[in-house]
Amino acid sequence: MTSRRRRSQRKVTAERPAPVADRGLLDRRALLTGAIQVAGLVVAGSHSGDLLAMAQAAESVPLETPPWMKVPGQPFRGYGQPAKYEEEVKRTYFQPYKDIAPGAGASMTPLHHLQGTITPNGLHFERHHSGVPDIDPAQHQLLIHGLVKRPLLFSVDALLRYPMISRIYFLECSGNSFFNAAAEPPQKSCGAIHGLVSCSEWTGVSLALLLDEAGVDPQGKWMVAEGADAAAMNRSIPLEKALDDALIALYQNGERIRPEQGYPMRLLLPGWEGNTSIKWLRRLTITAGLVFSREETSKYTDLMPDGTARQFTLPMGVKSVITHPSAGMSMKGKGLYEVSGLAWSGSGRVTKVEVSADGGKSWAEAALQAPVLPLSLTRFRMPWAWKGEPMLLQSRATDEKGNVQTPREKWSEQYSVGNIYHYNAIQTWSVSPEGEIKNVYR
Amino acid sequence: MTSRRRRSQRKVTAERPAPVADRGLLDRRALLTGAIQVAGLVVAGSHSGDLLAMAQAAESVPLETPPWMKVPGQPFRGYGQPAKYEEEVKRTYFQPYKDIAPGAGASMTPLHHLQGTITPNGLHFERHHSGVPDIDPAQHQLLIHGLVKRPLLFSVDALLRYPMISRIYFLECSGNSFFNAAAEPPQKSCGAIHGLVSCSEWTGVSLALLLDEAGVDPQGKWMVAEGADAAAMNRSIPLEKALDDALIALYQNGERIRPEQGYPMRLLLPGWEGNTSIKWLRRLTITAGLVFSREETSKYTDLMPDGTARQFTLPMGVKSVITHPSAGMSMKGKGLYEVSGLAWSGSGRVTKVEVSADGGKSWAEAALQAPVLPLSLTRFRMPWAWKGEPMLLQSRATDEKGNVQTPREKWSEQYSVGNIYHYNAIQTWSVSPEGEIKNVYR
Repeated sequence: MTSRRRRSQRKVTAERPAPVADRGLLDRRALLTGAIQVAGLVVAGSHSGDLLAMAQAAESVPLETPPWMKVPGQPFRGYGQPAKYEEEVKRTYFQPYKDIAPGAGASMTPLHHLQGTITPNGLHFERHHSGVPDIDPAQHQLLIHGLVKRPLLFSVDALLRYPMISRIYFLECSGNSFFNAAAEPPQKSCGAIHGLVSCSEWTGVSLALLLDEAGVDPQGKWMVAEGADAAAMNRSIPLEKALDDALIALYQNGERIRPEQGYPMRLLLPGWEGNTSIKWLRRLTITAGLVFSREETSKYTDLMPDGTARQFTLPMGVKSVITHPSAGMSMKGKGLYEVSGLAWSGSGRVTKVEVSADGGKSWAEAALQAPVLPLSLTRFRMPWAWKGEPMLLQSRATDEKGNVQTPREKWSEQYSVGNIYHYNAIQTWSVSPEGEIKNVYR
Repeated sequence: MTSRRRRSQRKVTAERPAPVADRGLLDRRALLTGAIQVAGLVVAGSHSGDLLAMAQAAESVPLETPPWMKVPGQPFRGYGQPAKYEEEVKRTYFQPYKDIAPGAGASMTPLHHLQGTITPNGLHFERHHSGVPDIDPAQHQLLIHGLVKRPLLFSVDALLRYPMISRIYFLECSGNSFFNAAAEPPQKSCGAIHGLVSCSEWTGVSLALLLDEAGVDPQGKWMVAEGADAAAMNRSIPLEKALDDALIALYQNGERIRPEQGYPMRLLLPGWEGNTSIKWLRRLTITAGLVFSREETSKYTDLMPDGTARQFTLPMGVKSVITHPSAGMSMKGKGLYEVSGLAWSGSGRVTKVEVSADGGKSWAEAALQAPVLPLSLTRFRMPWAWKGEPMLLQSRATDEKGNVQTPREKWSEQYSVGNIYHYNAIQTWSVSPEGEIKNVYR
C-alpha cells in the first residue's frame, strides 16, 4: 500500500523544485517521508546535474577485487565495537577542575558525526559531579520512605520483576550550549557546543506504581531523589511529576543502563532538565516541602536581569540545531547538500522546524522524520543547492504548545550576563565562499 | 494533556482486574501505554499483596553509606561500555565449521537479557559466510551498472553527502529459530534459539534515488547485489523492491554502521529475509533476469513436502516470542510477574498479540508498546499472577494483513522434514511447579 503510493507520487512530479527561501533552500517535499521525488532533486538543467557531481561516471566493467576480499574475515564477537576507522567519533570532555576532580564535569555527544535520532549508548552525554561510581548491583538498594504509609526497600532483582514501560525520550543537561553564552562565539564543533543532549529508548518501572505501593501521605508534596555517587547528588522533585510520567529506568536502548548513565538504575523525568533525573538512584524521600539542595541553589538556577536567581526551571525549552553542515566542517564544492539537524522540546512534540540560509531574513519549512514522538529528538532535513555564496544557516523550532526559538539577542535579554542555563537560542553557522563553516552570533 | 488523562484514569479504576484467561493472565489494560492503573495491579486481597512480595518493608531510617559513595568515581570516557557486572549479556555463537572456517556461522542477540525494542549495536545478530572484512572506507566504492543509462561509481564520502532517510526496522535471518525445527526441543535460551532477529534505527540513502540517477533501462527487472566479503555474497533482488523502500544504510542507531553489519555500507531491504540485505555492499548490477546464485539455490530455499524447493520467500512471516520469562530462567516464587516479549512481521504492522498460559486453550490480548511501527519489533506485555501451577506459556501474533502465527505442528506440515528456513511457529515455554522453564513443543 505504502509502496504503491510512493511510486505514484514519483510519477507525477517531473518538474524541478522551486526554491522556497533565499540562497538555494529547496522544497522539503522533495525529501518527505521516504517519498523521494527523484526527478525533483536534480537542480541543474540536465539530468546529470548536481547529484552526479557526487558520483563518478563509470565504465560498466567489473570492479577490481580489493585486498579484503582475498582473505577470510574476522570471526564473531560477543559484544561488538565500532569500526577502527571511526575512532574520532567520541565524546569530547569538559573537565573544569581536571587536576583535583577529574570526575567532575561533562562529556558531550558528537552530534555532528551522528545521524537519525537514537544516540548509541557509548556516546550518550555524561554529566558527573564526582565521577562514575562502581556499583555492585547485588548490593544496591532503592529506599522509598518519608511521608509514606509503608517505607519500602527494593533490591535490583525485585525491581526487575515489575511491569515495565519503554519510551523514546531525549535527555538534556540544563547547561547544554552554555559555551554560546560567552561574549565571543566559541569555534568548537556542533557536538562540543550542543552535545549535552542525547536520545534513547528507556525502559523501566513506573514510579507512580511504586509510590502507590508505598502509599503517599496526603501531606507529601515533594520527593527528594538521591544518587549513590560520592557527591550524593540530590534534587527536590514536585510529587506531581513523580506521579505522572517518571520512570525508574533500568534499561537503555535495549540493554541494562550503562555505568555513566546510572547503573544499576536512574530516575528519569521526561522532558525535564537532566540534572533532576538522578543517576545511581538510591533513595526517594517523600516530603512536605523542598530541601533547597546545592543543586537547586548555588547551581542550576537562572540568573535574572534584576539580580535574583530563578529556581526550578524544570521543563527544557524548545530548541533545534543544524548538525550537517556545522562548525568545523567544510563544504566539498558547490552543488546539492542536505541540511539536517535535531529539534526537541520539554513541552511535547516538535510541530515545525524552519530553516534559513540568509541569517533569518527568509525561512522555509523542513521535513520532519516520522514518527515525531513527544519529548524525543526529531530529525529535520531540507535539500539545499549551494552556489558558493556566503551563507548564514539557521534553524528555528516550534513545539505543540506554540513555543518558538528566539534569536540569541532576545534569549540574552531574559537573563543577567553570566547565566549559563537553559540556553535555547537560534544557532547560526556561517558558510564562507570558500566553504569554511563557523559559529557566529546573530 | 497526557498527564491529565493518565491521572483521571487512575482515579476511576479502584477495582481489581479480572483474570482474562486461564492460569492467572490479567487484563492488559492494567499496563496500557503508561497509564498504569495502580490499584488494579494489586492482585491479592490486601493492598500489601503480591507487589509487596517483591519489595521489602523498611524502617524509615537512612540507608547505610555504601563503599562507592566514599571515594570519587571514574572520570569520563570517549566511548562508553556496559557495566562489568553485565558481562554475561553477549551474543552466543553458532560456528558449524569452527576449525576450518571460524568466520562462517552466526551469532545471536541475547533477547532474554534485553528490554524495549531497540537492539544495542554491540548485540545485533551476525550472520557471516566468510567472516567480517576489514574495509578501509577511503578505498571502498559502490558500483551501479548493468542495464542502466549511466553506470555510476560512488565513494563513501559521495554517498554521505546525499539526502538521508531514518527508519526503525527489524532485521531477521531467514534461518532464525531453526533449532526448533529439530525433532526434540533444544534446551537453549530464548536468545540462542530466536536471536537471529534485531531492531535498529537505520539511516541511509534511498536506493530509488541512486537508481533514478543511473537511469534504469526498461528491460531491467532484477538487481544483483554483491558484498565485498571474501564470500562475495550475492543475491538477486526484484527491481520493484529496490525502487520501493530499499536503503543504502550508512548509520545504525545514530552512529556509522558497525563492521559486522556491513561497514562502510549495506543494502537494507525492510521486512525481507536478512540474507538479501547484502553487507559490505560493493556492486548493484541491473539485469533482465535473476542469476540463481548459491544463496538462492543450494541455500535459503524452503524444502517442500513434495520434494521440491521453493525459492524467493522474501518477506519474513508474522512471529512473536515471549522473552520474559523464557527457557533457562526460573521463577522467583509465586506472585505477580510481567509476561513480555517481541512481535514482528515482514508484511507491516503487528496488530495483535495474544498470550496463553494453558498451552493455547484460552487466550488474552497483550498490551502493545506504542508506537507500533511497521516492519519493526513491537514489545508486548501482560501482567500475570503465578500461583505455582504448571503452565504452558505461548504468544500468538497477528499482522495488519491478517497473517496469524500457527502451532508448530501446522507450521511443519507446510514443509519437508529438514527445512530450516522461515520458522515462525508459536513458541511454548513450560513452567514447572518448581518454577523451572523449558522449551517444549505443542
